[in-house]
Amino acid sequence: MPLRPSTMKQSGAALGAVLIAIAMRPGLARAKAYTFELNIQDTVITLVEGQKFHTFAFNGQVPGPLIHVKEGDDVTVKVTNLTTLNHTIHWHGLLQKGTWQMDGVPGVTQPAIDPGNTFTYHFKAEPAGTYWYHCHVNVNEHVSMRGMWGPFIIDPARPTPLEKKVTRDYVLMMGAWPSKWAMKPGYGGIPGDVEDYFTINGKSYPETQPIRVKKGDVIRLRLFATADVPHSLHIHGHVFLIAFKDGHPLPQPIEADTVLLGPGERYDLILVADNPGRWMVHDHIDTHTTNAGKPMGGVMTIIEYDGVERSDDWYDWKDKKFVPDFYYEESLKKPYGMYESAAFKGQPAQ
Amino acid sequence: MPLRPSTMKQSGAALGAVLIAIAMRPGLARAKAYTFELNIQDTVITLVEGQKFHTFAFNGQVPGPLIHVKEGDDVTVKVTNLTTLNHTIHWHGLLQKGTWQMDGVPGVTQPAIDPGNTFTYHFKAEPAGTYWYHCHVNVNEHVSMRGMWGPFIIDPARPTPLEKKVTRDYVLMMGAWPSKWAMKPGYGGIPGDVEDYFTINGKSYPETQPIRVKKGDVIRLRLFATADVPHSLHIHGHVFLIAFKDGHPLPQPIEADTVLLGPGERYDLILVADNPGRWMVHDHIDTHTTNAGKPMGGVMTIIEYDGVERSDDWYDWKDKKFVPDFYYEESLKKPYGMYESAAFKGQPAQ
Amino acid sequence: MPLRPSTMKQSGAALGAVLIAIAMRPGLARAKAYTFELNIQDTVITLVEGQKFHTFAFNGQVPGPLIHVKEGDDVTVKVTNLTTLNHTIHWHGLLQKGTWQMDGVPGVTQPAIDPGNTFTYHFKAEPAGTYWYHCHVNVNEHVSMRGMWGPFIIDPARPTPLEKKVTRDYVLMMGAWPSKWAMKPGYGGIPGDVEDYFTINGKSYPETQPIRVKKGDVIRLRLFATADVPHSLHIHGHVFLIAFKDGHPLPQPIEADTVLLGPGERYDLILVADNPGRWMVHDHIDTHTTNAGKPMGGVMTIIEYDGVERSDDWYDWKDKKFVPDFYYEESLKKPYGMYESAAFKGQPAQ
Repeated sequence: MPLRPSTMKQSGAALGAVLIAIAMRPGLARAKAYTFELNIQDTVITLVEGQKFHTFAFNGQVPGPLIHVKEGDDVTVKVTNLTTLNHTIHWHGLLQKGTWQMDGVPGVTQPAIDPGNTFTYHFKAEPAGTYWYHCHVNVNEHVSMRGMWGPFIIDPARPTPLEKKVTRDYVLMMGAWPSKWAMKPGYGGIPGDVEDYFTINGKSYPETQPIRVKKGDVIRLRLFATADVPHSLHIHGHVFLIAFKDGHPLPQPIEADTVLLGPGERYDLILVADNPGRWMVHDHIDTHTTNAGKPMGGVMTIIEYDGVERSDDWYDWKDKKFVPDFYYEESLKKPYGMYESAAFKGQPAQ
Repeated sequence: MPLRPSTMKQSGAALGAVLIAIAMRPGLARAKAYTFELNIQDTVITLVEGQKFHTFAFNGQVPGPLIHVKEGDDVTVKVTNLTTLNHTIHWHGLLQKGTWQMDGVPGVTQPAIDPGNTFTYHFKAEPAGTYWYHCHVNVNEHVSMRGMWGPFIIDPARPTPLEKKVTRDYVLMMGAWPSKWAMKPGYGGIPGDVEDYFTINGKSYPETQPIRVKKGDVIRLRLFATADVPHSLHIHGHVFLIAFKDGHPLPQPIEADTVLLGPGERYDLILVADNPGRWMVHDHIDTHTTNAGKPMGGVMTIIEYDGVERSDDWYDWKDKKFVPDFYYEESLKKPYGMYESAAFKGQPAQ
Repeated sequence: MPLRPSTMKQSGAALGAVLIAIAMRPGLARAKAYTFELNIQDTVITLVEGQKFHTFAFNGQVPGPLIHVKEGDDVTVKVTNLTTLNHTIHWHGLLQKGTWQMDGVPGVTQPAIDPGNTFTYHFKAEPAGTYWYHCHVNVNEHVSMRGMWGPFIIDPARPTPLEKKVTRDYVLMMGAWPSKWAMKPGYGGIPGDVEDYFTINGKSYPETQPIRVKKGDVIRLRLFATADVPHSLHIHGHVFLIAFKDGHPLPQPIEADTVLLGPGERYDLILVADNPGRWMVHDHIDTHTTNAGKPMGGVMTIIEYDGVERSDDWYDWKDKKFVPDFYYEESLKKPYGMYESAAFKGQPAQ
């Protein structure tokens, strides 16, 4: 399905081009078409008790809804801007072969979407891997600190042997927030800002969720650095494989216990759950494990194995209320499509 | 057989030593000798309209002149310090086999070059790859924020198959500037400084230049992080290969869409221009795309394909005045030697 | 067969478990048992003349004592907290197979160790490689800026061919210190802090020590980023191999002249000493080579070759008093065990 945008806008389709493209890519013959809707809304989220943040959230949540399709699928996304500022969506890492006008950069590939307006993006889902979508207007504010991002996962037509072994799949989008600008939309994201809250999927510890596994699982952790700071994620008790960078398989995976991500990068880690226990997962940039300067907080969670008691009276999470799908781990098992998660919803801004 | 600098200074050449060295490296029989002159000058450059910066520029420009030679060549550089402060030049990444006194570190390999004085560096150009030269006196100021750096490109005697395919070659030296110290030479470059301007080859967007390619080109982007901050460069619409680190071929290139550079590092990216359009290239540390905190600016440019119209009235660069050789792409096609670029010239400081 | 800490505490040993574990790992038949004692003490260290820092030091020194054992060895560490704050020890990178309660995370694997109390850790030394131990209470202060870390080196049962060639082995633990909090234990390590001192093994240049080698040596530099900032270490005059990440051999070593470390990461570099001279080694984050904003300082040292005169009157280190074992290079040649170094001792805090 064409992905010629100029044609698309006029005719709505360019089948011939698509058929040729498909013919050239064996194994993609079953490509399907999906249409999704994303509304950008002034939304107040709670990073952790006591700290709210005004965001421009996709469908009222941070991270935005999971988009999960297969390599080669035809994707249409209708984006409506319900805020008072301009926005676009860039599909970070997608090739946009033949559809550069769908790339979502204001002043370069399209005019920005004015408040109240809708823009329809239409493109092919490729290449396979771990991608994300985010606004491309005033990225220093909108992406860095207004929560305008969500995961875009494209399953490969031909998975690597390693990823075929995965039994549980998790999305971890890390962020950083300068509270000075929390309730001042349209401002902030400037050099010298002090980020003092740090999150996984929009929540700071202790309001993150455990990663619950059973012995024998092969887990995949899809890491994203969404904000303006690097992250240096460390996992206890396991050697993991750094297996994918920016969605692409590394020629040879790298064994590690800590991985450094620069803003915009993604790394997919593969970890064999062979060591029952309770294991810390945290940013080793130590101030990123504080909330407003107070430990422990921020980018921190725990891998909990089934069968390991959680009843020690000194265990910080002994009474933890478990919220499923916090890492989109349930949604990723469902049929392809777009999924929201109640865990990420905020409140409409007044 | 060492190139003994003390001998060099006296005789002006050490031909015997060079011939012996060459004889020991098969395939480099055609090594040539070059003599260049670099003057260090108090120079005011304009990062972007409204922001000037006092630099200690090599031949009055930032970046300094391109030095482009072949592996094994014999290089002499006469450096004259026309400023009021001490300087040296370090040839970052060059081996200086047998010529450690030519390495350019004050107090370690030589006394610093006093104002008004000349020092002559003489060494062999090796290894092949993407290197740079920079001052080694008070690097926290002179390198980080006074523009004392330039590219030193050494072509290999035996190119890798991948680099043989390159049709266009670009130098992108990224920098960061704390405006507080802009016109206070001799001060700044201290912990706590806030860098609020960010540049490619000394210019902030929109005063950077497009990278103009045609479909089928294989482009090489030589990235340098010159200042005190990392950069996390993202390119839209393409998967690139991270092919060389610090001048050296990676054992296996890595596919990516974003690459993190620490200060001093270089990465050479290889990108097949197979996707006509207009594609953003920018630092994904989002505050690095602002000028004094205002988006869009900083480390940002656009890959423009030939044949893609640039006339959309909403295109930010529709009236862009093209300045050739902004990435030394023209100079790199010329015979070996040293090249200045009018694009980088500043004004003598008063 | 897990080492159950509850059993261990009662019996003082878990020999049966260890023997079984050993039996399952061919080649480790000669595993030995070691018991070490670490006391955590309020200790004032001197980063460089004029700058003291209150630390919670292991056995009164920063870095803490070297622990050096062989893969598979049985290790017991009795930790006594002589300070007025809570602490634990986490053994960063060790697998703790079957011993998750020995992982040292307060509130997750154990209650923190109260002042005056002792906790005994007991675990198997695996995997092989470059690890470290550090406190896991209030890591933003205790690890980032109170010196609570030391090296834990585990020799492999089967060394790689590359590491077999190593003739000299060095530990370089890099740190960063915000002087604002120097003498205010219990405070600091918060977003916005300005680190203004930078150290290798607790000392800022010029109080670091040279790395003295002879031509033909194959040196291994074990780099650690212990604090809250990255480091971008550059070595002059050599191409090194990035050979190990976080203790694990890279599938293919990478040639480089600069290496970026995120907090918590370790890289082992292998460098062939084939180029006699005096060569700078320094952080290319240039402000990290200042002491309180004044160059030259911080993360900087010099590789000095035997046979190269050090008598030039302009050589900064011509009168340098050499302190052996500053990089634990002597201790690493001794029989397995725990080693302190006089070079790192501080004074008891008043």
